[in-house]
Amino acid sequence: MERDIHPAVTDAADDIADMEVRGAATIADAAAAALGEQAEASEAETPEAFRAEIRTAARMLHETRPTAVSLPNALRYVLRGMNGEIVSELRVSVIEGAVEFRRELDHAQDNLGQIGANRLRDGDTIMTHCHSTDALSCVRNALDDGKEISAIVKETRPRKQGHITAKQLREWDVPVTIIVDNAARRYLDDTDHVLVGADAIAADGSVINKIGTSGLAVNARERGVPIMVAAQTLKFHPGTMTGHTVEIEMRDEAEILPDDERAEIGDVTVENPAFDVTPPRYVDAIVTERGQFPPESVVTLMRELFGDYHANEPWER
Amino acid sequence: MERDIHPAVTDAADDIADMEVRGAATIADAAAAALGEQAEASEAETPEAFRAEIRTAARMLHETRPTAVSLPNALRYVLRGMNGEIVSELRVSVIEGAVEFRRELDHAQDNLGQIGANRLRDGDTIMTHCHSTDALSCVRNALDDGKEISAIVKETRPRKQGHITAKQLREWDVPVTIIVDNAARRYLDDTDHVLVGADAIAADGSVINKIGTSGLAVNARERGVPIMVAAQTLKFHPGTMTGHTVEIEMRDEAEILPDDERAEIGDVTVENPAFDVTPPRYVDAIVTERGQFPPESVVTLMRELFGDYHANEPWER
Amino acid sequence: MERDIHPAVTDAADDIADMEVRGAATIADAAAAALGEQAEASEAETPEAFRAEIRTAARMLHETRPTAVSLPNALRYVLRGMNGEIVSELRVSVIEGAVEFRRELDHAQDNLGQIGANRLRDGDTIMTHCHSTDALSCVRNALDDGKEISAIVKETRPRKQGHITAKQLREWDVPVTIIVDNAARRYLDDTDHVLVGADAIAADGSVINKIGTSGLAVNARERGVPIMVAAQTLKFHPGTMTGHTVEIEMRDEAEILPDDERAEIGDVTVENPAFDVTPPRYVDAIVTERGQFPPESVVTLMRELFGDYHANEPWER
Amino acid sequence: MERDIHPAVTDAADDIADMEVRGAATIADAAAAALGEQAEASEAETPEAFRAEIRTAARMLHETRPTAVSLPNALRYVLRGMNGEIVSELRVSVIEGAVEFRRELDHAQDNLGQIGANRLRDGDTIMTHCHSTDALSCVRNALDDGKEISAIVKETRPRKQGHITAKQLREWDVPVTIIVDNAARRYLDDTDHVLVGADAIAADGSVINKIGTSGLAVNARERGVPIMVAAQTLKFHPGTMTGHTVEIEMRDEAEILPDDERAEIGDVTVENPAFDVTPPRYVDAIVTERGQFPPESVVTLMRELFGDYHANEPWER
Amino acid sequence: MERDIHPAVTDAADDIADMEVRGAATIADAAAAALGEQAEASEAETPEAFRAEIRTAARMLHETRPTAVSLPNALRYVLRGMNGEIVSELRVSVIEGAVEFRRELDHAQDNLGQIGANRLRDGDTIMTHCHSTDALSCVRNALDDGKEISAIVKETRPRKQGHITAKQLREWDVPVTIIVDNAARRYLDDTDHVLVGADAIAADGSVINKIGTSGLAVNARERGVPIMVAAQTLKFHPGTMTGHTVEIEMRDEAEILPDDERAEIGDVTVENPAFDVTPPRYVDAIVTERGQFPPESVVTLMRELFGDYHANEPWER
Amino acid sequence: MERDIHPAVTDAADDIADMEVRGAATIADAAAAALGEQAEASEAETPEAFRAEIRTAARMLHETRPTAVSLPNALRYVLRGMNGEIVSELRVSVIEGAVEFRRELDHAQDNLGQIGANRLRDGDTIMTHCHSTDALSCVRNALDDGKEISAIVKETRPRKQGHITAKQLREWDVPVTIIVDNAARRYLDDTDHVLVGADAIAADGSVINKIGTSGLAVNARERGVPIMVAAQTLKFHPGTMTGHTVEIEMRDEAEILPDDERAEIGDVTVENPAFDVTPPRYVDAIVTERGQFPPESVVTLMRELFGDYHANEPWER
Repeated sequence: MERDIHPAVTDAADDIADMEVRGAATIADAAAAALGEQAEASEAETPEAFRAEIRTAARMLHETRPTAVSLPNALRYVLRGMNGEIVSELRVSVIEGAVEFRRELDHAQDNLGQIGANRLRDGDTIMTHCHSTDALSCVRNALDDGKEISAIVKETRPRKQGHITAKQLREWDVPVTIIVDNAARRYLDDTDHVLVGADAIAADGSVINKIGTSGLAVNARERGVPIMVAAQTLKFHPGTMTGHTVEIEMRDEAEILPDDERAEIGDVTVENPAFDVTPPRYVDAIVTERGQFPPESVVTLMRELFGDYHANEPWER
Repeated sequence: MERDIHPAVTDAADDIADMEVRGAATIADAAAAALGEQAEASEAETPEAFRAEIRTAARMLHETRPTAVSLPNALRYVLRGMNGEIVSELRVSVIEGAVEFRRELDHAQDNLGQIGANRLRDGDTIMTHCHSTDALSCVRNALDDGKEISAIVKETRPRKQGHITAKQLREWDVPVTIIVDNAARRYLDDTDHVLVGADAIAADGSVINKIGTSGLAVNARERGVPIMVAAQTLKFHPGTMTGHTVEIEMRDEAEILPDDERAEIGDVTVENPAFDVTPPRYVDAIVTERGQFPPESVVTLMRELFGDYHANEPWER
Repeated sequence: MERDIHPAVTDAADDIADMEVRGAATIADAAAAALGEQAEASEAETPEAFRAEIRTAARMLHETRPTAVSLPNALRYVLRGMNGEIVSELRVSVIEGAVEFRRELDHAQDNLGQIGANRLRDGDTIMTHCHSTDALSCVRNALDDGKEISAIVKETRPRKQGHITAKQLREWDVPVTIIVDNAARRYLDDTDHVLVGADAIAADGSVINKIGTSGLAVNARERGVPIMVAAQTLKFHPGTMTGHTVEIEMRDEAEILPDDERAEIGDVTVENPAFDVTPPRYVDAIVTERGQFPPESVVTLMRELFGDYHANEPWER
Repeated sequence: MERDIHPAVTDAADDIADMEVRGAATIADAAAAALGEQAEASEAETPEAFRAEIRTAARMLHETRPTAVSLPNALRYVLRGMNGEIVSELRVSVIEGAVEFRRELDHAQDNLGQIGANRLRDGDTIMTHCHSTDALSCVRNALDDGKEISAIVKETRPRKQGHITAKQLREWDVPVTIIVDNAARRYLDDTDHVLVGADAIAADGSVINKIGTSGLAVNARERGVPIMVAAQTLKFHPGTMTGHTVEIEMRDEAEILPDDERAEIGDVTVENPAFDVTPPRYVDAIVTERGQFPPESVVTLMRELFGDYHANEPWER
Repeated sequence: MERDIHPAVTDAADDIADMEVRGAATIADAAAAALGEQAEASEAETPEAFRAEIRTAARMLHETRPTAVSLPNALRYVLRGMNGEIVSELRVSVIEGAVEFRRELDHAQDNLGQIGANRLRDGDTIMTHCHSTDALSCVRNALDDGKEISAIVKETRPRKQGHITAKQLREWDVPVTIIVDNAARRYLDDTDHVLVGADAIAADGSVINKIGTSGLAVNARERGVPIMVAAQTLKFHPGTMTGHTVEIEMRDEAEILPDDERAEIGDVTVENPAFDVTPPRYVDAIVTERGQFPPESVVTLMRELFGDYHANEPWER
Repeated sequence: MERDIHPAVTDAADDIADMEVRGAATIADAAAAALGEQAEASEAETPEAFRAEIRTAARMLHETRPTAVSLPNALRYVLRGMNGEIVSELRVSVIEGAVEFRRELDHAQDNLGQIGANRLRDGDTIMTHCHSTDALSCVRNALDDGKEISAIVKETRPRKQGHITAKQLREWDVPVTIIVDNAARRYLDDTDHVLVGADAIAADGSVINKIGTSGLAVNARERGVPIMVAAQTLKFHPGTMTGHTVEIEMRDEAEILPDDERAEIGDVTVENPAFDVTPPRYVDAIVTERGQFPPESVVTLMRELFGDYHANEPWER
């Protein structure tokens, strides 16, 4: 049955699976584009056949990264907009849905950045954890508004993505102080905002982000520093509306302990979770392209975007 | 006047200054021994000359590491015991003081370890930060009491002293899990006790220890995990009784950011404080060789050991 | 005017008043069914008369338990759906409304249970308070998903409904540990989730539940244990949207102190409130059949279900 | 172009600018009325001209107090309702919008007061800060419901608006105890509810109110006293949905330190901010004319009232 | 060797073991008296023999209840006072030590009661947990000072010792309200002081008391109610100075679940710990016969009473 | 019997009663001096008569301000040093005791100031409440050490003693910002230390100080700012060791509400407590002339200074 699947879909699926296409927004864009091409090229003769074909394409794309968040969100967006009574109507609805999704995506990070920038005042110092283009978009917009911003950048072991953040900020001439993660509490006294991104936002208001975020947030609250999470709605995880928890990926142990150091120490266990979960009570605001939200009210926007309780995903029906 | 100083003193001073003699207890031992040798060899003919000579030796030793804690504590101990009306009495008092100090030091870590071990139950999991022989002495004693103990070892950036801790624990067959510092909050849910050492204990109950301790302690309290600090009274900082704060050493920036990585990122500031300050309200017990204490009552033991308010140190009088 | 009321309504009213019909869902079901029968049998000849008759029936049912929550919710549901310009249209709308309400009710507890089950992981231990079929539905669904769940069951003085919970869990082969309510804080250290039901949910996010819930929630937060409240939307109390507080029933003093024990002690006051109020800041998630919600956002769903500010109930107009 | 602006608009603008028209609700009412008169008198001949004229009027009104909250809310309400394809339709829509806005405004404070009153029980003691007619409306309604209410009134330096509150409450025969602001924590032990108004409500759930509110709220939470904020939706600040912060006005230094006292003390800085920001986690409920809300869910009502993200205000388009 | 043990000692040992002698103070009194009689009747001819005989008697008494606290404290008191160079001196020292200990014991509860009473004001309402004669002595003294005191008495499952407390308070005409333990949080709003006793006080400031105390203390702090612990120094546990934890006795499961109810429920585990551990941060004052103390400073008094670190108990040397 | 009382005593008593002698230290100094003069002039012929005469003088002085703290502390100091077997010895002991007390008093504030100054770093900003010469002594010593200190001065309603503090600081060229008490929370974000004095320190670690201190301390903890209390041991209240609470003086209502303003408002109650009680958990350090102490350990120093439990004051025996 999959003979009707367009090469644009299979290629996109391969690229996502091979991680040649990476990053939440880039993956989502590729998936929506592929669905659009599938619709354009479809030779289905009945509405039923057309719907089945699009669902098959969506399912194929979804299976490349079953635990990602942005990918199924792109598929849901396009499939929820698929309607019509004849094939030509259905085709147009899918093509337009894909275009619209991609256009919104194109603006989303900049809109988010402007909203986050509005929370920053001239002269503020932010503290960052890991690397997030959403978070950096807030800084970029604040700079464009003529505000001076300084940054304390946590290196973010084990992969030290703080270095990428530092490099980007230096290119924008933002003064940067690099510290180890262990020094965060001390430098919170010099910080006006903790500013981080997110890998996923859950319906109970939890923020799933790079390991270390939750410990930082607890300390920020204790030190009286507000914490702002920059996350496009693409990061909203609709499965959490029905109580599902976000699976935390365990990464390569060698990121923490290279083999030679490990041999030196002896027989130890190494645990390398990629993310942790910050409860909503330690987050002051989640900044999206649709406005800022207290974490406890994100579920309302989720319901607006994804609808109420569903037993099945649109590509499973 | 310094021609009368014994080579044992100048050698000890050199070794401490060059960091060939390291570690709080080892330095204290060397300093007390040197004072004993100075007393033994002194050719002073009047009590005044003898006292002056010992004070000069003490001052010379003190100046090698003016911000250390154990070194002046050793000097204070010996000088407070110096008394007598004739040179021979003074000599004996200093020699005996030095011997006594060194003997107590010899037993202190083991006594402390037994007291700390009593707080641990069979089957407990501890979480460690940095490397502390006082903290490890608690584990060693618990193992000797037949208890099974497991350890979650934070690697402790920037210098990863957690690796030394892990290696020692593995030699004792303690099951070890190594994590990055960022993962601490998640693994606190599997932890029965946070167990750390201290570089200095202040009169207001604060614990000065390896950078990252205070952030860990705040998270431990938030997660409901008790935190135990193992610290011989040698670590008590008497200057804090009169309000002095402990100076925090800033270490080599290259520990955090090697030159090649720094060149890659661009022109950044790097801050590398060696220690931080944990307020007493986040510590459950300070375990010493004299018993365990809530941090708020340590000042009482300090006053017992060092006396009330003093304007001058004994070697300055 | 009440001569037109159908025996199905008067019988239902009697059964509810006599507590022969008990339990939030059962009462709601009986009330909706009775309204449907009233509509079916109505001999009203004008729309006005029909409407008046249905409102009278609703009022009669409502008066049987004026402080209950599920009963008026059932009545509101059916009456809000009553519309049409002629009697036959009105009749159909009421009958269908009643059927639809009952059908949703039928699925609600199971849907809720599946959502709650998704929050539980294989191997988790829950702590329960009182007896709640909504809470147990979460366990049942988790078991059906192949997860192993253990339970610590608080006996829940004064009526020890914990025994009913324990018995049900044992029938499902769930390992159960029974404790007195006083022992809760100690056993929270062995608990992964506190899981309770609710008698009513208020618009300010408060949870009204069996006396003892709020004290447990405060301790759960202090011990770092998440608390999940399982409550169908039937338990939402729309009157609280306009600031009304939920009246707390005071129950029979002899539940606490039988007469013989009381005589032994002397002349004392006994206070036996049935419920208490847990502020939203101590609750992590409210699980309903429509998804899970942070308590602070429940008001949004309430407004969706019951509409904005109303001075009068539909049966009072 | 401004020659077409009706004197009703220019007069209203002057009165608002001169502070002859004061108070959030009074200003809003005047602005809506002025727009209505402009529409009624307009001689525009094309829809474009009519729209431009109304926008010009709105802009003129808005510029009188660019940091106020209720004024632009009134303008937004009327302009969002302006529609039609011909001038007469547009005219009617603006006139009716203005009438409707003013009618709602007329009822809003009383509706709010009834909702707030429902939270108060007979015999309760409230503590007030500053003077708020919204807050007092809750008391008035509670008294009308036959409840006895007592009040502890903070004088509210620097302008002692507490005296106005005290006088109003005494006219209603409410027993009043006046205290200095410094005594608040002590008298919180005799308080059942802290009841305050608001100058603006932000999308992140923050409450902007008279300086001292946030310190009171922190103490109220510490003492276990709930805090209720009475604020019509007119106080909602839609700009905060896009991250804008509310600018805090700095008032006349002489309110704090009259010149003669200042001369006596010497050369000092004086800071006199009019408002402060209370984070949502210290507020139990925000009471509006549309119902009560946890502060974290106010953003949902804001989106309902003002729509999603907007780059431009309606009078700027 | 035990043939020399006086029947007063063996009888006391039997009575303590059989629980015919109960209550911390009564046991301590009996043990001291027995040692006194042993000294009086001793036929030892050498100091060594006398010392050995007294130690044997102490050991025999100690072994009757190895986990009690007051018993070894009595023995320590008498044995620490045993000194002299000849038998007659040793005899006198033991006899006088026993007399002195018993005389102090006699006054201790009343002195403690007066100190605790000083913390209570006229008109205060206390909340009690379990039954403690030390706590009641505070009430008795307050009444004797002419203060009116009311009491909210938690029944204290499983053994409902609250009934004993209530009965005693009624005999003193104190107004009593009885509640189930679950209702504590609600009634804390009517409480001025939580007043409880202790089974043991630990050197880290922890209070070991009837199960439920720690949960109550956490709620009292959250509600802003101070908590006072009444505990004679007899309850101080010197072993905790060296890190030992207090063993928590597990009591008869049938106290919680009688056999018939258990049979009804099915195969369940029952856990019935007698005590729990309240951390010092939730206790405002520990009231002893030597004055009141913050829990964090009790260790200082312990060191005064029992001396510094000891490897062995006096009867083990 | 009082004919033997020296005019120095009756004059001192009059001056203290008339408040011509004011301030804790000044009163104490005058009382000690008067006792010295009484001893010098005494014509008593027997030790009993001498002792009785001194006690009578002490009692007369004490009765002038029965709720003061420093006055009885001075009397206790002198009377506890009174000993000897003949009148001449007794006389000398009292004279020397008075001299010694006054000499210590003379140095105490400066010693305290140096200790407090050690806690301040160069460039720090303090926030003050009310006026305290002990607190200012810390600033004075910090300035003398070459540190730059800035101050945010709360005006401290009702009597605005902040103006006195501001004036003193300006004379020392310290930059001063004056704010109303209501603005404290906002300016805590610019504050490094809250620095206040005390009227009395209680044995449970509570600080009794000018009304508003406790509310400030709660906010300082919430904002992460340490709070330091400067209080000579003269302020220690020994009666609190036996549980006595410090009576809070209610001051003139006209300080809050002048008669003309009161007449305008109507019939209101005014409450004007002079002090409030800050629990030890919100205080980081109590700085005395004997060193700094966590509030929880002050009781140990109290016991050192005043001895253990006493039923009677020395002048009552």
